[in-house]
Amino acid sequence: MDYVETLQQTIDDNIPLVSALGASVASYDGQTLIVELPLAPNVNHKNTAFGGSLYCAGVLSAWGLLFLKLLEVEEEGVIVIFDGRVHYHKPVTEAFKSTCELSDHSAWEKFLKVYRRMGKARLKIDSEIICGDQVCASFYGEFVVQKN
Amino acid sequence: MDYVETLQQTIDDNIPLVSALGASVASYDGQTLIVELPLAPNVNHKNTAFGGSLYCAGVLSAWGLLFLKLLEVEEEGVIVIFDGRVHYHKPVTEAFKSTCELSDHSAWEKFLKVYRRMGKARLKIDSEIICGDQVCASFYGEFVVQKN
Repeated sequence: MDYVETLQQTIDDNIPLVSALGASVASYDGQTLIVELPLAPNVNHKNTAFGGSLYCAGVLSAWGLLFLKLLEVEEEGVIVIFDGRVHYHKPVTEAFKSTCELSDHSAWEKFLKVYRRMGKARLKIDSEIICGDQVCASFYGEFVVQKN
Repeated sequence: MDYVETLQQTIDDNIPLVSALGASVASYDGQTLIVELPLAPNVNHKNTAFGGSLYCAGVLSAWGLLFLKLLEVEEEGVIVIFDGRVHYHKPVTEAFKSTCELSDHSAWEKFLKVYRRMGKARLKIDSEIICGDQVCASFYGEFVVQKN
């Protein structure tokens, strides 16, 4: 099974809200993970995307990227968010996507070193919520990963 | 119709994700708004509540409190979140609630004064996610309200 299918199955099997959000793992090229969501199940009182849905989109792509990066280096662990923030720049008026990549490779190397030594480590991961060609929201997450 | 029913109907009619979250407006005593959510539709890979669901719970009670406070002073407007943050303290292992009240009354008075003069104003509102008798997460929101 490829990475996209593995991640989709993992979130589908474990997080029932993923189905309600209509979140689908669209692609992963080894660097950037893209999760797509339709507008209809995620609208608010203004017929734009609900702020809670945009946060969920951000956390899913950030959590998902960390999950895939760990798979790539043959590590497993329980990934948990302990702090998340989203800043909303523009209303999301149609189907949207959440994209995530590791921007700070030295932070990743440091995280991996600590994780392998201690069995637990923390990492900051950001993602962007994009609608059309515009970044409509920015998500900032802090995650902890612990060995099973 | 009372405040609890009005708010429930407003979020049900406008935000389809509310149904998937199982969010119900439990009570409002003129000061504290309580929104309750079951665990089952909101679980994650650890069988505790999904971080995205906890954010949604936080934003719903904060948005809801602001909606009710505006109703009380016979004001209407479009309430939109522009920044939200959640800090996760402990895993949520059963049904949970999100509680919200205005802790800073002078900030509210100032908000209302600006809103009535300018037709637009900003306000910070925090809420707590409670499971059993413990605060498991803290939500910090910044909202803007604009006259229709």
